[in-house]
Amino acid sequence: MPTSNLDAQLDLAERLVEATRPIITGYFRQAVDIDQKADATPVTIADRAAEAEMRRLIAATFPAHGIVGEEEGAVRPGAEYVWVLDPIDGTKRFITGNPCFGTLVALLRDGRPLLGVIDMPLLAERWIGAEGRATLFVDRLGRRPARTRTCPDIAEASLYSTSPHMFEGPDAPAFARVRDAAGLVLYGSECYGYGLLASGHSDLVIEADMAPYDYLAQVPIITGAGGVMSDWQGGALGLNSGHRVLAAGDPHCHARAVALLAAA
Amino acid sequence: MPTSNLDAQLDLAERLVEATRPIITGYFRQAVDIDQKADATPVTIADRAAEAEMRRLIAATFPAHGIVGEEEGAVRPGAEYVWVLDPIDGTKRFITGNPCFGTLVALLRDGRPLLGVIDMPLLAERWIGAEGRATLFVDRLGRRPARTRTCPDIAEASLYSTSPHMFEGPDAPAFARVRDAAGLVLYGSECYGYGLLASGHSDLVIEADMAPYDYLAQVPIITGAGGVMSDWQGGALGLNSGHRVLAAGDPHCHARAVALLAAA
Repeated sequence: MPTSNLDAQLDLAERLVEATRPIITGYFRQAVDIDQKADATPVTIADRAAEAEMRRLIAATFPAHGIVGEEEGAVRPGAEYVWVLDPIDGTKRFITGNPCFGTLVALLRDGRPLLGVIDMPLLAERWIGAEGRATLFVDRLGRRPARTRTCPDIAEASLYSTSPHMFEGPDAPAFARVRDAAGLVLYGSECYGYGLLASGHSDLVIEADMAPYDYLAQVPIITGAGGVMSDWQGGALGLNSGHRVLAAGDPHCHARAVALLAAA
Repeated sequence: MPTSNLDAQLDLAERLVEATRPIITGYFRQAVDIDQKADATPVTIADRAAEAEMRRLIAATFPAHGIVGEEEGAVRPGAEYVWVLDPIDGTKRFITGNPCFGTLVALLRDGRPLLGVIDMPLLAERWIGAEGRATLFVDRLGRRPARTRTCPDIAEASLYSTSPHMFEGPDAPAFARVRDAAGLVLYGSECYGYGLLASGHSDLVIEADMAPYDYLAQVPIITGAGGVMSDWQGGALGLNSGHRVLAAGDPHCHARAVALLAAA
């Protein structure tokens, strides 16, 4: 694949989140009708409007690409290139006026995450990752490389997760083994936890009960920053890799977490 | 007490957080030595520098007032007026590069919370409450009243708490009863959850394992916004009221939460 393809795809990925930032921030802390989907996740008008705009831009730029989104389902999911969209990751935070929600955009090639963007519309922060490239962090001060930090000892690690209630059945004791070993444990991270990890501010994110649009964007970001992201067994993440994810800034810390998650 | 006293005290309270914002933001995401206190809470240089500046300003303005701070202990804790300071509420978030930490300032008169400020240095948001006055919310767009929303039915309520690991022994099932009854449950809030509640974006905050400097500032803010804040039995909060707190935007929701917390 020529570099220019990836450049054009990265350009579109950033245009997607540039276009949706004003849509999403315009609805933030405003009274909107909040529907309930079948699985009882709150969904806002902002979510649907942002995804519709992203789908329009993708179709106009790369009409042959597939699209999988949280709101509107899949078109051409078997295409060589498939965009995976989550306009508002952290909907519960959005509807409670909390700015720690994000927009996630991933592009898969033949099922593998090729590029990813985490955009925090209200915090005006963004992480951009692509296969074979150094991850970038962008905020009001400009854009610069994001690098994970070393943390070989899990006892020194700070661990983020969105909620302990993600972990059901045997997932709960597995998570608890890592939680008990980690130095600091924080909840409420949503996608932001992966960005903080990519920038070397924390060391581990462990989550479950996730859909692919909740985690695929993070894979090139973590990898391109020097970290490792996988399922709980250390396997590669794709559209069909299950609901459990593990990200670590230090490969040694990742290996230790995989061992703890597996230990009976 | 003449109004002018309260005005002068409110003026100082805002000057305290105006003075500490640049100190605290200057250390954010910078490499600083992180000590460990005896209770293993991480403490940063920023924390101590901010508290020292607040103590200096209080002593210069109201030399007879007492001061209780997280970092340096108490001076004149038996004075008529006592300032209660927490420079960085959410230290774990601060040291992991997460901007959702706050500065808490309370002024007690004869042990009762008279005024309070929640300041979010990185988010540039602030709530200001004082006995007998409407709570104010301040952000980049200016200052305006903050009001809680109605939510008489706990099944419709959104509930924030910093961490489920706050709840030990019988506190855990008590919290779980409210959590199971609430419509939405979110973690990771620190002091920000009380601000969101005061502005009518969420409905309940329930926490335990708290020190007085973790919660006294919030009392005038929640009360002046139309809500109720108390210990888990509905009792008034002061320097010696224990470690469990409950805030609700709607008095009916507060009463229901008190009942659920008490039910065996």
